[in-house]
Amino acid sequence: MNPKFITLEGGEGSGKTTQGKNLAAWLAASGYSVLRTREPGGSAGAEAIRGLLLGRSGWDPVAEMALHFAARREHWARSIQPSLAAGSFVVCDRFFDSTLAYQVAGQGAPRAAWEGLRAVTLGDVAPDLTLYLDVPVALGVSRAMERGDANRYDRLGLEFHERIRQSFLAQAAAEPGRFAVIDASAPLAAVTEAVIATTRARLGLP
Amino acid sequence: MNPKFITLEGGEGSGKTTQGKNLAAWLAASGYSVLRTREPGGSAGAEAIRGLLLGRSGWDPVAEMALHFAARREHWARSIQPSLAAGSFVVCDRFFDSTLAYQVAGQGAPRAAWEGLRAVTLGDVAPDLTLYLDVPVALGVSRAMERGDANRYDRLGLEFHERIRQSFLAQAAAEPGRFAVIDASAPLAAVTEAVIATTRARLGLP
Repeated sequence: MNPKFITLEGGEGSGKTTQGKNLAAWLAASGYSVLRTREPGGSAGAEAIRGLLLGRSGWDPVAEMALHFAARREHWARSIQPSLAAGSFVVCDRFFDSTLAYQVAGQGAPRAAWEGLRAVTLGDVAPDLTLYLDVPVALGVSRAMERGDANRYDRLGLEFHERIRQSFLAQAAAEPGRFAVIDASAPLAAVTEAVIATTRARLGLP
Repeated sequence: MNPKFITLEGGEGSGKTTQGKNLAAWLAASGYSVLRTREPGGSAGAEAIRGLLLGRSGWDPVAEMALHFAARREHWARSIQPSLAAGSFVVCDRFFDSTLAYQVAGQGAPRAAWEGLRAVTLGDVAPDLTLYLDVPVALGVSRAMERGDANRYDRLGLEFHERIRQSFLAQAAAEPGRFAVIDASAPLAAVTEAVIATTRARLGLP
């Protein structure tokens, strides 16, 4: 079968990193070669841009989005696309859906800029499958607090994270062919089971 | 009168920096407040992106152009636009015309990406006057060699710089209301005289 480009999306405390690792491990155990990667970053130039984005605040919102898409274009052209062409699956933690959720729905950057930047830098490139790991914000908070990551909640506020969640749910409803919504409030092992079962069903894997 | 946004464009050895300095000095002596600036860079975030662009080679061409426009958006939003709003003239060494000349005509990046990125990051923002300082490539070479800057010619080749020149001339022909072509092969003082006379005539300055 053709290699597939799979992304994981979700808010804080949704378990994307763990579930991406578990999905990649299952694909590898099933005999596929797999690139596991994440954004922002994921290739040398994109990591340099990530450093700029994380190292400095106060960007103009459209400039910040242009930086995200510049990094994404590098990531796609230098890492994701060549891996797919070489026959690997790609499992990527966050992609352009996160920019729509965080920069547009969360921070109020214009949606038209997101659409324009996506068209310019990626054309019609899109993941084959996007697994959205859905957790109620309150549960995400308590998980983030458990791992000592609560400062992001303090800084941005629960209402911000609720907008992120509603954006992801709206995106999933608008593109049901690409998105699958996974209930990530379940225990970790059950979520992994759902991630793998959904991936098999959606991509027709044995 | 309303403050105006003036850009200087040209190839290597065209004298943009010197002429920008002289034009800004003349505007200041005429009683206007003036911001003199340059790209890439020109504001804190844009300078950080400039550092990335100059510090690393091998960018994907569309990603590189997205970085230029991210920096330009920062420069516009944080520096040029506020200066114009506060009543200053702005004299800027290079703007989006340079990206069309160097990245599209010079390096073969797609023109549609330039158009899309310009629309997303700047809308209908454009300079009020663009002074294109035209010199034959051979003269630009000898000037660049005199100031010890010849390595850029060695690296990119005369044919590259000829494409840059032809791109600027075509841009000037396509937008005669915004562009003025200045013969920059003349002696420095005569070029300054032409720059000032053209600016006065085009912008209706006393």
